[in-house]
Amino acid sequence: MFTIDYSNDKDFELRSKRPAAKTDDIIPVVKSVLEEVKNKGDKAVRELTLKFDKSCPKELLATAEELDAAEKEVPEDLKKAILIAKNNIEKFHQSQIITERKKITTSEGIECWQKMVAIEKVGIYIPGGSAPLFSTVLMLAIPAKLAGCKEIVLCSPPRSGGSINSVVLYCAKLLGITKVFKIGGAQAIAAMAYGTETVPKVSKIFGPGNRFVTVAKQLVNSCETAIDMPAGPSELAVVADKNTNAEFAAADLLSQCEHGPDSQVGLFVSDEDKKNEIIAEAERQLELLPRKDIAQKAFALSFAVVVDSNEKAIELTNIWAPEHLILATDDAEILAEKVINAGSVFVGKYACESAGDYASGTNHTLPTNGAAKAYSGLNMDSFMKKITFQTISENGIKKIGNAIETMAAAEQLDAHKNAVTVRLK
Amino acid sequence: MFTIDYSNDKDFELRSKRPAAKTDDIIPVVKSVLEEVKNKGDKAVRELTLKFDKSCPKELLATAEELDAAEKEVPEDLKKAILIAKNNIEKFHQSQIITERKKITTSEGIECWQKMVAIEKVGIYIPGGSAPLFSTVLMLAIPAKLAGCKEIVLCSPPRSGGSINSVVLYCAKLLGITKVFKIGGAQAIAAMAYGTETVPKVSKIFGPGNRFVTVAKQLVNSCETAIDMPAGPSELAVVADKNTNAEFAAADLLSQCEHGPDSQVGLFVSDEDKKNEIIAEAERQLELLPRKDIAQKAFALSFAVVVDSNEKAIELTNIWAPEHLILATDDAEILAEKVINAGSVFVGKYACESAGDYASGTNHTLPTNGAAKAYSGLNMDSFMKKITFQTISENGIKKIGNAIETMAAAEQLDAHKNAVTVRLK
Repeated sequence: MFTIDYSNDKDFELRSKRPAAKTDDIIPVVKSVLEEVKNKGDKAVRELTLKFDKSCPKELLATAEELDAAEKEVPEDLKKAILIAKNNIEKFHQSQIITERKKITTSEGIECWQKMVAIEKVGIYIPGGSAPLFSTVLMLAIPAKLAGCKEIVLCSPPRSGGSINSVVLYCAKLLGITKVFKIGGAQAIAAMAYGTETVPKVSKIFGPGNRFVTVAKQLVNSCETAIDMPAGPSELAVVADKNTNAEFAAADLLSQCEHGPDSQVGLFVSDEDKKNEIIAEAERQLELLPRKDIAQKAFALSFAVVVDSNEKAIELTNIWAPEHLILATDDAEILAEKVINAGSVFVGKYACESAGDYASGTNHTLPTNGAAKAYSGLNMDSFMKKITFQTISENGIKKIGNAIETMAAAEQLDAHKNAVTVRLK
Repeated sequence: MFTIDYSNDKDFELRSKRPAAKTDDIIPVVKSVLEEVKNKGDKAVRELTLKFDKSCPKELLATAEELDAAEKEVPEDLKKAILIAKNNIEKFHQSQIITERKKITTSEGIECWQKMVAIEKVGIYIPGGSAPLFSTVLMLAIPAKLAGCKEIVLCSPPRSGGSINSVVLYCAKLLGITKVFKIGGAQAIAAMAYGTETVPKVSKIFGPGNRFVTVAKQLVNSCETAIDMPAGPSELAVVADKNTNAEFAAADLLSQCEHGPDSQVGLFVSDEDKKNEIIAEAERQLELLPRKDIAQKAFALSFAVVVDSNEKAIELTNIWAPEHLILATDDAEILAEKVINAGSVFVGKYACESAGDYASGTNHTLPTNGAAKAYSGLNMDSFMKKITFQTISENGIKKIGNAIETMAAAEQLDAHKNAVTVRLK
């Protein structure tokens, strides 16, 4: 962890700048994967799966038997934990659905309102790896179910034996997702974006992934498929002062460092001694971690910045716009009011970032790489659209008609004007 | 207008498919514009403006004097109309801001909530042309102001004399926008995405534009700048039955046709005679339009489809997912309940689409090209983020801690687990 000495905010902004992700080199290969799947459907998916995953499952769709068998493999204590998480995530996300349609009378005889409607068909991507993140199934499928999405498709890469991790399957089954496909990488994104003989075409694709998946999502997004948000390495900022518990803060910093060697954490601290104490404690804890090699690399690339007040710390985190922000100070609730740019904020000493990753109820799919300046984390809005409606009475159009005619004429759009004129006659 | 005969829903979907926009040919030139502005700032903006707009204004920023002078040029009746529109748009958009922070106790000792916070810096693009669409200034700047965006930058291409249309300037002044730049095309998008010596860098860019602007927005979006939504030609669907007023329906269809030769309208009608009546009436009205040449081309590319019930009409519009949807039937309010995919819905015979374009209060920036399946039209969410917050008490972490530890261990993320363990000790 290095210390950023900065002369002013602009200087801090420059010094805390994240390294740019390089993707130009893989765009051609991803483009060709997309084209192949678009043109040849399942046949291309099978060929690409064989090529990239070394073997291709006989059936791309996981069977009901596989889902049932997976359920039996998951230990009881993990099932209990997952049910606790599910309950909390459901409660928080359910609360975000606006069922009431506030009809606004904008002027006499005119009523306008919004209605939240589920996106009909959504796709979820869950990456593979030695320990696939089943928690992401909960974070994506629970809001999709609550929204009322009619078709939920889940893709995840097959392991060498052609199966998918049993906890991922268990979570899918628990949430009533029946279309689980053993397809990974850019070919999975292509299959969901264009549809194949077996994989339904969806309107929006969610979920994390490697560089190939990320680029594939970007490319299909520039055509006609919506995506959740731009993806980047995980991040965490901790705001600390002289009273912060160094053991907690160090553990929090390392929890993000273990995600990957390119994860980034920042410590914003108003006390030089505390900074040193937290760093020393983190180095002590680092030694004990199974994923020490990864965490160490990320920790080395991470920064601490000493500020002269907790308020100044928030000014700087607002510039950095972290994915996760932990306020580990006694005045955390006051500081929380000043947060402008962050994905998810953890207020107070017991609110660790892990809680939000798994079970407290908030979503863990959040904007990274400074995207928190313009993007929200995943929430019910991500799975629903707000359609606007309006009714206009005969009296309403009489009252407002001339204004519309005048504006349409000034924009030289006479047919627009005429649509009012015929109604005023 | 041609008639689609369809055998089933899938067949209708294929036959009503929109032509794909071709942009590959201009990507290289747009990329080079972006690179130049990124590297050379204002100097590149000036060179590119001279190249594409034939002359470059002495000052890129419109002065206070220019804004004042523009105000004097706008006729009083147009000012009055604009104020009526402004008032209605403000009322409807203000109603969408959620100030209340509903704190949800997801489980004992854990509170989670969302807070709507303005995006700090936003950019607005207003295209040029013989009659620039000042109404778009209202539709973009009013919600930006209501949201509380601190920096609002507006770019619009300079006319041959180096000035910007006075109604556009008047609307900007009316809404308190002081940073109006005389820059157009891809160079404007680049200036706002990267920032230059005079143009502030923004986090999100809004507004319509030609192919170059659209591609530039897509390209900066794949890096770090958010954009409002994918852009495409304007669209309108009208649902009609035997009682529909043909004169109104014809005028509505033509109002979208006049936008451009690639605009598309669709008539979904449950009565063959009414179909013929509406088409004949549209052809009659078409002759009288100043923009007849444009509207005629769009009308020729547009379709009518005869259905056996009004409900079936809605099933098909849900497949087509139009930007604008007019329900011109007596049972419009019942049909409105069945709408799943549309940008903005106009319910009943007096609710013409022009009303929503200008003055009724709803936003006119809406998803086109079928994007209504996954995207909302512009609303307050577009200018604000929802940040999640959580507090966890000592008791709260004790209650939920084990579940988090179990899940983190199952994902082999021991540092995540440890962040809880240190707090449970």
